[in-house]
Amino acid sequence: MTVPTELPPPPLGSFASDNAAGVSPEVLAALVAANEGPALAYGEDPWTAEMVAAFRDLFDAPVEVLVGWGGTGANVFGLASLLQPWQSVLCTDTAHIVVDECGAPARFTGSAITPVPHVDGKLEVAAVAPFLHWLGTEHHVQPRVLSISQVSEMGTVYSVDEIAALCDFAHANGLLVHLDGARIANAVVATGADVRTMLRDAGVDVLTFGLTKDGAMYGESVVYLRPELAEHARFVRKQAGQLPSKARFVSAQVTALLADELWLRNAEHANAMARRLAELVADVPGVRVPRPPEANSLFVQLPPEKIRPLQDWSFFWEWDLSQDMVRWMTSFATTDDDLDRFAAGVRAVLAG
Amino acid sequence: MTVPTELPPPPLGSFASDNAAGVSPEVLAALVAANEGPALAYGEDPWTAEMVAAFRDLFDAPVEVLVGWGGTGANVFGLASLLQPWQSVLCTDTAHIVVDECGAPARFTGSAITPVPHVDGKLEVAAVAPFLHWLGTEHHVQPRVLSISQVSEMGTVYSVDEIAALCDFAHANGLLVHLDGARIANAVVATGADVRTMLRDAGVDVLTFGLTKDGAMYGESVVYLRPELAEHARFVRKQAGQLPSKARFVSAQVTALLADELWLRNAEHANAMARRLAELVADVPGVRVPRPPEANSLFVQLPPEKIRPLQDWSFFWEWDLSQDMVRWMTSFATTDDDLDRFAAGVRAVLAG
Amino acid sequence: MTVPTELPPPPLGSFASDNAAGVSPEVLAALVAANEGPALAYGEDPWTAEMVAAFRDLFDAPVEVLVGWGGTGANVFGLASLLQPWQSVLCTDTAHIVVDECGAPARFTGSAITPVPHVDGKLEVAAVAPFLHWLGTEHHVQPRVLSISQVSEMGTVYSVDEIAALCDFAHANGLLVHLDGARIANAVVATGADVRTMLRDAGVDVLTFGLTKDGAMYGESVVYLRPELAEHARFVRKQAGQLPSKARFVSAQVTALLADELWLRNAEHANAMARRLAELVADVPGVRVPRPPEANSLFVQLPPEKIRPLQDWSFFWEWDLSQDMVRWMTSFATTDDDLDRFAAGVRAVLAG
Amino acid sequence: MTVPTELPPPPLGSFASDNAAGVSPEVLAALVAANEGPALAYGEDPWTAEMVAAFRDLFDAPVEVLVGWGGTGANVFGLASLLQPWQSVLCTDTAHIVVDECGAPARFTGSAITPVPHVDGKLEVAAVAPFLHWLGTEHHVQPRVLSISQVSEMGTVYSVDEIAALCDFAHANGLLVHLDGARIANAVVATGADVRTMLRDAGVDVLTFGLTKDGAMYGESVVYLRPELAEHARFVRKQAGQLPSKARFVSAQVTALLADELWLRNAEHANAMARRLAELVADVPGVRVPRPPEANSLFVQLPPEKIRPLQDWSFFWEWDLSQDMVRWMTSFATTDDDLDRFAAGVRAVLAG
Repeated sequence: MTVPTELPPPPLGSFASDNAAGVSPEVLAALVAANEGPALAYGEDPWTAEMVAAFRDLFDAPVEVLVGWGGTGANVFGLASLLQPWQSVLCTDTAHIVVDECGAPARFTGSAITPVPHVDGKLEVAAVAPFLHWLGTEHHVQPRVLSISQVSEMGTVYSVDEIAALCDFAHANGLLVHLDGARIANAVVATGADVRTMLRDAGVDVLTFGLTKDGAMYGESVVYLRPELAEHARFVRKQAGQLPSKARFVSAQVTALLADELWLRNAEHANAMARRLAELVADVPGVRVPRPPEANSLFVQLPPEKIRPLQDWSFFWEWDLSQDMVRWMTSFATTDDDLDRFAAGVRAVLAG
Repeated sequence: MTVPTELPPPPLGSFASDNAAGVSPEVLAALVAANEGPALAYGEDPWTAEMVAAFRDLFDAPVEVLVGWGGTGANVFGLASLLQPWQSVLCTDTAHIVVDECGAPARFTGSAITPVPHVDGKLEVAAVAPFLHWLGTEHHVQPRVLSISQVSEMGTVYSVDEIAALCDFAHANGLLVHLDGARIANAVVATGADVRTMLRDAGVDVLTFGLTKDGAMYGESVVYLRPELAEHARFVRKQAGQLPSKARFVSAQVTALLADELWLRNAEHANAMARRLAELVADVPGVRVPRPPEANSLFVQLPPEKIRPLQDWSFFWEWDLSQDMVRWMTSFATTDDDLDRFAAGVRAVLAG
Repeated sequence: MTVPTELPPPPLGSFASDNAAGVSPEVLAALVAANEGPALAYGEDPWTAEMVAAFRDLFDAPVEVLVGWGGTGANVFGLASLLQPWQSVLCTDTAHIVVDECGAPARFTGSAITPVPHVDGKLEVAAVAPFLHWLGTEHHVQPRVLSISQVSEMGTVYSVDEIAALCDFAHANGLLVHLDGARIANAVVATGADVRTMLRDAGVDVLTFGLTKDGAMYGESVVYLRPELAEHARFVRKQAGQLPSKARFVSAQVTALLADELWLRNAEHANAMARRLAELVADVPGVRVPRPPEANSLFVQLPPEKIRPLQDWSFFWEWDLSQDMVRWMTSFATTDDDLDRFAAGVRAVLAG
Repeated sequence: MTVPTELPPPPLGSFASDNAAGVSPEVLAALVAANEGPALAYGEDPWTAEMVAAFRDLFDAPVEVLVGWGGTGANVFGLASLLQPWQSVLCTDTAHIVVDECGAPARFTGSAITPVPHVDGKLEVAAVAPFLHWLGTEHHVQPRVLSISQVSEMGTVYSVDEIAALCDFAHANGLLVHLDGARIANAVVATGADVRTMLRDAGVDVLTFGLTKDGAMYGESVVYLRPELAEHARFVRKQAGQLPSKARFVSAQVTALLADELWLRNAEHANAMARRLAELVADVPGVRVPRPPEANSLFVQLPPEKIRPLQDWSFFWEWDLSQDMVRWMTSFATTDDDLDRFAAGVRAVLAG
């Protein structure tokens, strides 16, 4: 333990990840409220019907929605419902489905998940276009899905136009677009775009609509904006081990977050906290913020010998040690006091 | 709607399944209590350490435990950590992993799940012994795991001796024993055996330790009684989409149920309710109870034309219409009032 | 080695299996003839076009045909082109795809291959009908294909009416029929039915048309009698590792066997040899032939202590030692001299 | 058809691919010779024992060898015998297992096949080293195998030192090295290295030893230079649909090619033909040969409008139209007359 005794008290909250936060009070209240009487399992309950209605309202469209347990599982069955094993997914080499899911989508689907170089964590048409010449030839896997993450794993956010360009390219070539929206709320507030514009109108076909990092306890939804793609999805979800038995407790959380735009308010708070953190550390000698935060993650370069002492004081994850870069994340639960304490600690450690 | 107006008011609880019940109050309290401050995700939290310690206490052995989301998922990664794709699982043709998981274990593992005839829902050595001659020959899948369900899908319960006999047979032939304990608590109280005797001493290698049907909200544990079998299980769990991010909320539930034997008290209640229900309907003309309930499910034969009216009044599932058989399940949440109302309704409909 | 010295000389041919035979002279000549000049790989060659035309002639229908390497591989890609991973295949518990392919079809497709009890090695509607109630419910795999073996693994042969009944049942319920025709030639000559009647008119959807056991060196064809089912089959074949590079050498064999009904003449010879062998041993004391051979395999019960000495003299496979049953197979290459010598040896060993 | 009438007669041989060639006369003779009497199937025959002995001789080591049907299948089961589904293979983004096998290795193994940028078609340590930090963390697939192609898909050849460096790196980090030797003979003669030095001593663990492109009809071998890695490989091969029934006909070909170094003489001829072709076209105006051929493929840049007319005259494959690059391949069967005619045609078309 290398922390000098004179450091300020660490923050009560954590900057390690937005999934280190607990659960929004409104979500907890919804769970308690849902624990009332019996309900048929596996989604044959009124809470699930209400959740689907809330999504149809949100998108003003007859979307299909299936909840799953977690983000990896939701990505798995969302993708699997679009793919044959001889087809492939194109995504960035930083994508969660490539890097952070222990190969789950590839194993379950049998399909190739082909990583291509990213630009600031985002997929560009130029990177996927060369794979189209594989179409029609049995020696090659057949590109079928472009998968993008919004917010990206690099903390960047696609504009509506960028998403629309990828969707147009995909559809013009017989492909589909899947969006991993583990932090979709943060992206919506970051761009200021309406969710209908960003997802439905831009042409996204299927997305994982993530709320766990935005205040839920568990449960991630797959939203089929083109409902016909959900035709067999119930079987795929079950087979992927993603059908919750007491489904009412997932649905109740989703409904609570969609109500009164709580999902957006939580995200707006998280994003604002990241921006304010960037401001607070901007003038700390030794801290370099290569780019302002677009959503709720702040990537920071530190003097390498200061990283470990700072982690020992208040843990966060390294991002790319070849660049001395670490990641600080904020969440719906981050407080101004957390920011002030954390910034003070950074200042103290770097001055140490 | 064919329900005559003179029927008594239906029960507030449901006899459809034990997963139609909500959550034990102690579990809900534990969830609220766990929502305190930040915690690293994916099991790097104190609640998870406490949960593992509780299991080691329970078994008085250095077991390994990995929580997953649901029962299908837990069966999948528990089995997958024991199997190569050219190996096979032998189980009854009524097993949940064969009948009720949409093929998830077979799809994920690539291994054959070979159903054999059951005797009262249970696996017997005689049914699996003929497959041993497949061992060593590349044309055949290689039997590797016997999987049994305790309580079985037919509501029957293996005695400790029956489990030990299967384990001895398996181990003598280089095989392992997996136990699907979706209702393990009900089985433990049904037999009166100590859980250490029934599972650890009898020789079970790996089990799904289910608590969702016993009062939890979600989250099923895989317990590796032979801890060396868990060597790579963390990778398998993640790949199966079964690693909860905010794991503290799963672990807190498990600990709450194991504390003060709540898991056994809940099950004892459920089993007692099934026994009492059997008594209450025993003399209703037209009701036939082929065998007394061993755990918390009651299989009943009814006049076929009465099944639908009774379901319309208070829903339950058909079991085997070729025998006019239905299933009534009780749970930790079933009340005496539920029983009295339900029995009254049965009496009224059958007299109608 | 327990063979007494006074035994007659063993046969030059083998009764172990029809795949212990070599290659028809006409096939070898075709291979030599095909080794003329260059040819594009992977089926873009005139020999392959000629092979497809030969099949269309044979069935007088616009069938699609894809050759593969071996029987297991052909079954795998034939089935895989019909199935989603959440669908299942129903077949007898003696089926080659269950017993003798090391789980290959299940592993590759991810689909459940569900064995049901056989009647004399054959599938009956009564055994599969109960699985139809699984249709439509996400908890269960969805039955999609009935797979039958013609000749069956028990040496029995489906009549045209039996095949038609299974096809009618399947189609009436939205299922398809796959036929493993590893010994299809033997079945055609055994029944005397026209191949068009037995397969096309009866309603088989897809079959493995096997010729290796009938005089070819290697290469098994998948014939899509409903050509629309082959829409994506080229990708499936390639992915299953079953696309031959120098495809001309497979195609040339098939064409050689289909020409002038060589495939039927070879099978007629093999079947006749089995019938004559049954006659030759019928009166040997200790030999019991439970049923006359329908195709080219003879199942025989022997005094158990005589099995090993007879195998040591001229090897064959045991079939079911619990019944003291062994299998003797004939092939296109079996000679009268082989029969006479083998029968003499049987007589000598059993008298010994 | 755009070919002008004054073009010279096209070559009798093809420059499309080395698998457009037929079969070496010695191989055909071996097939005819192997068609003598019966032989137990699946490798229980003397030809297979002789083949294994020939490989042990070749490597002067107790290697294990399993023959398969084709190159894709051999890569699949060779890799699958090294991998768990949560492990991964690192290879170049030009690798056959990534580009040309329709995703077969990934589908069958469930493992991620991760492409990394190549340098002249070859894998370098620098490209794979960054993935080592994934080791030990359940969120990431676990790198287990480096797979290289020798000759590479770009026609380049690894030196012995380059292979040894990759093997040393792999072994130092607990990884294995797989080598796709579809053209291993061409590589051995190209480098002049002894096959024992290049493969056994350099540290390759498992390789596909390809002979089909070198004069065989079919059948590719997997050689386990570390024989303990073959422990369960027979099951994997069978499950991958790669166990030939009449295995003697595969084994006989291999033995014929290994005898008297026919495999090396065939490759030496093919390589020499490529070198001579490069010389013949070097001074043709409009032809650009960016690099001399290392093995038996010549990559050539042509005026784009000349490519199609030249293909119409004597077919070959385009390689990278963005660079106007085509590929001409030679084989054991290429003749001087083929070269002279082809070069004359190139000259004529480009002058046209």
